[in-house]
Amino acid sequence: MRESEFLQTLHFNSLRLDDGSVVNMSVPIVLAIDDEQKRRIGESTRVALVDSDDNVVAILNDIEIYKHPKEERIARTWGTTAPGLPYVDQAITYAGNWLIGGDLEVLEPIKYHDGLDRFRLSPAQLRDEFSKRNADAVFAFQLRNPVHNGHALLMTDTRRRLLEMGYQNPILLLHPLGGYTKADDVPLSWRMKQHEKVLEDGVLDPETTVVSIFPSPMHYAGPTEVQWHAKARINAGANFYIVGRDPAGMGHPVEKRDLYDADHGKKVLSMAPGLERLNILPFKVAAYDKTQGKMAFFDPSRAKDFLFISGTKMRTLARSKENPPDGFMCPGGWKVLVEYYDSLTPADNGKVPVPA
Amino acid sequence: MRESEFLQTLHFNSLRLDDGSVVNMSVPIVLAIDDEQKRRIGESTRVALVDSDDNVVAILNDIEIYKHPKEERIARTWGTTAPGLPYVDQAITYAGNWLIGGDLEVLEPIKYHDGLDRFRLSPAQLRDEFSKRNADAVFAFQLRNPVHNGHALLMTDTRRRLLEMGYQNPILLLHPLGGYTKADDVPLSWRMKQHEKVLEDGVLDPETTVVSIFPSPMHYAGPTEVQWHAKARINAGANFYIVGRDPAGMGHPVEKRDLYDADHGKKVLSMAPGLERLNILPFKVAAYDKTQGKMAFFDPSRAKDFLFISGTKMRTLARSKENPPDGFMCPGGWKVLVEYYDSLTPADNGKVPVPA
Repeated sequence: MRESEFLQTLHFNSLRLDDGSVVNMSVPIVLAIDDEQKRRIGESTRVALVDSDDNVVAILNDIEIYKHPKEERIARTWGTTAPGLPYVDQAITYAGNWLIGGDLEVLEPIKYHDGLDRFRLSPAQLRDEFSKRNADAVFAFQLRNPVHNGHALLMTDTRRRLLEMGYQNPILLLHPLGGYTKADDVPLSWRMKQHEKVLEDGVLDPETTVVSIFPSPMHYAGPTEVQWHAKARINAGANFYIVGRDPAGMGHPVEKRDLYDADHGKKVLSMAPGLERLNILPFKVAAYDKTQGKMAFFDPSRAKDFLFISGTKMRTLARSKENPPDGFMCPGGWKVLVEYYDSLTPADNGKVPVPA
Repeated sequence: MRESEFLQTLHFNSLRLDDGSVVNMSVPIVLAIDDEQKRRIGESTRVALVDSDDNVVAILNDIEIYKHPKEERIARTWGTTAPGLPYVDQAITYAGNWLIGGDLEVLEPIKYHDGLDRFRLSPAQLRDEFSKRNADAVFAFQLRNPVHNGHALLMTDTRRRLLEMGYQNPILLLHPLGGYTKADDVPLSWRMKQHEKVLEDGVLDPETTVVSIFPSPMHYAGPTEVQWHAKARINAGANFYIVGRDPAGMGHPVEKRDLYDADHGKKVLSMAPGLERLNILPFKVAAYDKTQGKMAFFDPSRAKDFLFISGTKMRTLARSKENPPDGFMCPGGWKVLVEYYDSLTPADNGKVPVPA
């Protein structure tokens, strides 16, 4: 991003294009450089961007270098500057004091060579895939966790509702986030194995599901980030977006409360500039129904019949090789999780696993 | 504001109206209540708003009470949560944990009975005044400080430029901020006396100047607040807005630097949603030209000829009854400032004067 885009993102969560149209953009996509890199660039008007093996992957043309106002970026993106925000610690605090923007020229599609590149479809490739499948509605599900039967229930139920609305062939975009996640989230490679099992076991129907990796890092920036999650999927051909309680939220890093109001994500998304044509599908809460022995939509009139199994609880069970209640997750998927925790060294297990 | 307006203000600096149009709104206008007030309101659907003498001045109908997310409000409005932001200390930190919004029904124009109500023109009254004067351009100048000849120079020069552009009768809206200001700013009543002297002394032309009080409190929120300053003046009939370096800015309350990049205010304003039709007049920097013995536009090619007299320097001189260089401010205006500092008790003088 150039500075004008960076400022519009921070202040307006949207960019005004030259033709006057407005597109949603809530999360800065910026590259930080330090004083030494700035000095080396000197008067150059373009720079090469290299991967971790020093291969040139892109050129940044007609560059612009501007100050990196870290505190302001953090405050306006997260609505807090409390220490301990995972993405801030990972990518901002120790980053350089300058940002470099320009016209990006990507030389060829980026490959990660991690065995998962076949899942990394570009927005254009995803749109092609949906046409090939003759989709007349595409509904997207953002996730960064293993798929349990509660997730599956709401995805299959969403499809049912879209069919009822008259769509002939609704396709699900199952779009796990593939960039940085915090250390206690399950790494991408294991999540992808788990998602494959969920399709193999028939919990989701491969005929009507496209699995692809969303290459963004997780910001845990709640109402600000959910706009990016939705906008990127619209760009990839989705026209329905499933959103639940406290999307992209987390606990406050310092205070004993959630960082965001659980309803703000959906409210902010529904009013966001540039997303006027988005169809938001509210996420019903699913929980384990002890009377049915399966995941079901929570019925507050018989609350005591339901068991909420949190991510923390799920991780604790998998780590200690215990089984969750029958019907919480397909057995093949659960086995992947147990294997993942088993693969960690004893020093890691029960503590913070190092992301792959 | 209702919660939907509050959230749009924080995230988008703009509101989408029912007809789909977008209006700029960067600063929340909210009313905080505490637990006890919330309890007393109970199930009522409307509440009376009273002034400091318990006279009912307005009714809030069809009310809505929602959480006051103070940290998030501060972070998204100021781009920092550092302790010591003046408006935050004044109006947010100790305010209630709830906000109340609704449909506002003002019973009659609010009076302050401080001898200045004749200057408190509503936007409609200001627009009437501009028509009466047959203005074909209205340029607004936001200020919260005494007017010195550098300010006057840029206002008269702006008029000259507008005449050159072909306007026949450009009118200046001199619009001092009348709400809360930080303790070391000169109080409104003294500033108004000073402004009257500036007009009496002919530094500004009363024929082409409308003086009115802008009733907003000062937030010192830089690029976020400057949008509000401009939008409110457009609403009152202005079509040109004069903006300088670091509008509504201040020093960082904790770190030794300015809180905002001095250029961000103008950049953000130029891109702000709902302000597309605003004409921004960049503010040339004026300084005291020692060779001419008057305020003039700064010429970097002979920088050493110029003296920058800061607000702090000006206050120090007035407090010690010294005179500034000839031509810095009209003598009548300077006398008002000296009288103001003289009126403070010895305990106050040189320290923090209590706002009137």
